[in-house]
Amino acid sequence: MDLYTYYRSTSSYRVRIALALKQVEYTHLPINLIGNGGEHQKPEYLSLNPQGRVPALKTERGELLIQSPAIIEYLEEQYPHPALLPEEPSERAKRRAVASIIGCDIQPLHNMAVLNQLRALDISEQQISHWLTKWIGEGLEAVEQMIGHQGFCFGEPGLADVYLLPQIYAARRFNVDLSVLPRILRVEKLAHTHPAFVAAHPDSQPDKPSDN
Amino acid sequence: MDLYTYYRSTSSYRVRIALALKQVEYTHLPINLIGNGGEHQKPEYLSLNPQGRVPALKTERGELLIQSPAIIEYLEEQYPHPALLPEEPSERAKRRAVASIIGCDIQPLHNMAVLNQLRALDISEQQISHWLTKWIGEGLEAVEQMIGHQGFCFGEPGLADVYLLPQIYAARRFNVDLSVLPRILRVEKLAHTHPAFVAAHPDSQPDKPSDN
Repeated sequence: MDLYTYYRSTSSYRVRIALALKQVEYTHLPINLIGNGGEHQKPEYLSLNPQGRVPALKTERGELLIQSPAIIEYLEEQYPHPALLPEEPSERAKRRAVASIIGCDIQPLHNMAVLNQLRALDISEQQISHWLTKWIGEGLEAVEQMIGHQGFCFGEPGLADVYLLPQIYAARRFNVDLSVLPRILRVEKLAHTHPAFVAAHPDSQPDKPSDN
Repeated sequence: MDLYTYYRSTSSYRVRIALALKQVEYTHLPINLIGNGGEHQKPEYLSLNPQGRVPALKTERGELLIQSPAIIEYLEEQYPHPALLPEEPSERAKRRAVASIIGCDIQPLHNMAVLNQLRALDISEQQISHWLTKWIGEGLEAVEQMIGHQGFCFGEPGLADVYLLPQIYAARRFNVDLSVLPRILRVEKLAHTHPAFVAAHPDSQPDKPSDN
């Protein structure tokens, strides 16, 4: 499989964690969202993925799948072991609710396209910082109340962690205070030494610029 | 089951369509997001759902599920007929990608909390209108390219339609031009006379104000 990815994209990072947890081999195809005028907006990439976003996964059968939530559910169905979700439907719903708070209520409000659009509205950097702190802070407070008291979010690494670690990375990049979120900090610490989370981290990516 | 819902909330509307397509009976518990100072922010509701958003579904076993994407996947697992998703994993991923474009790339940028926050930034109504048109327009253009040439999004009513119809409703409410999206208009027209989509529509809800 081929993964179109950008080292710092939180939704690419999610898919990299899922692939690493399931130990699925793939070819890493970097799409630079910043340099080179934005490779995601070049005709070569748009002809593959007209929405022009990352990640995108080309399956072994040559089909291009887009949107990280859809790709992650696909990986769970095609590569069921180790499972990212438990068997019981309401327990699955609890993990998916954490994923959805991060994927729908937090990340869309700080992705690059949205930040560019906010800056085009001529609002101050202080207002942007307040915007980021508000959405990331409120969303992660909700997640803090939903996850468990030990281990990863719900014990073994799973779907909620696939979403949470990239969101923690973004929170730190935007200087959001996480000190009031002890459960989330516990998960972050565990992931620091877990091989799949280390392999998927932006700092481990071949397209990470050496000066960044 | 009990559904905490608001007639005009697009994510409540999604869950209502899924329940109606599957012909699952439920009790309708309206949470007025506007009147009465916002019932979603009252202690009674926050003690049930600390995130203070709708929809929320209380299952037959008394568990409270939140976040529409998680609730809809739960309904698909608990009430598999009629199915919202086909069997084949990459075909499932295509439907979920449409759901994700709407649920992550469009709706989060126009929900009430975000619009209130934009207004607090003291930007003009014209700039807000441009913001809405941009995100809804670009997102629905991507959806237009992904769905099929006849019937609902992918033939029979399914997951993509569960997300698309509420998004069309929001687009019309915000005066976004849909005339360039013929496939989406075809789906809208079909849903107009489909009993499940009619039953789930904001205009059919008991909490719809009579003067609106």
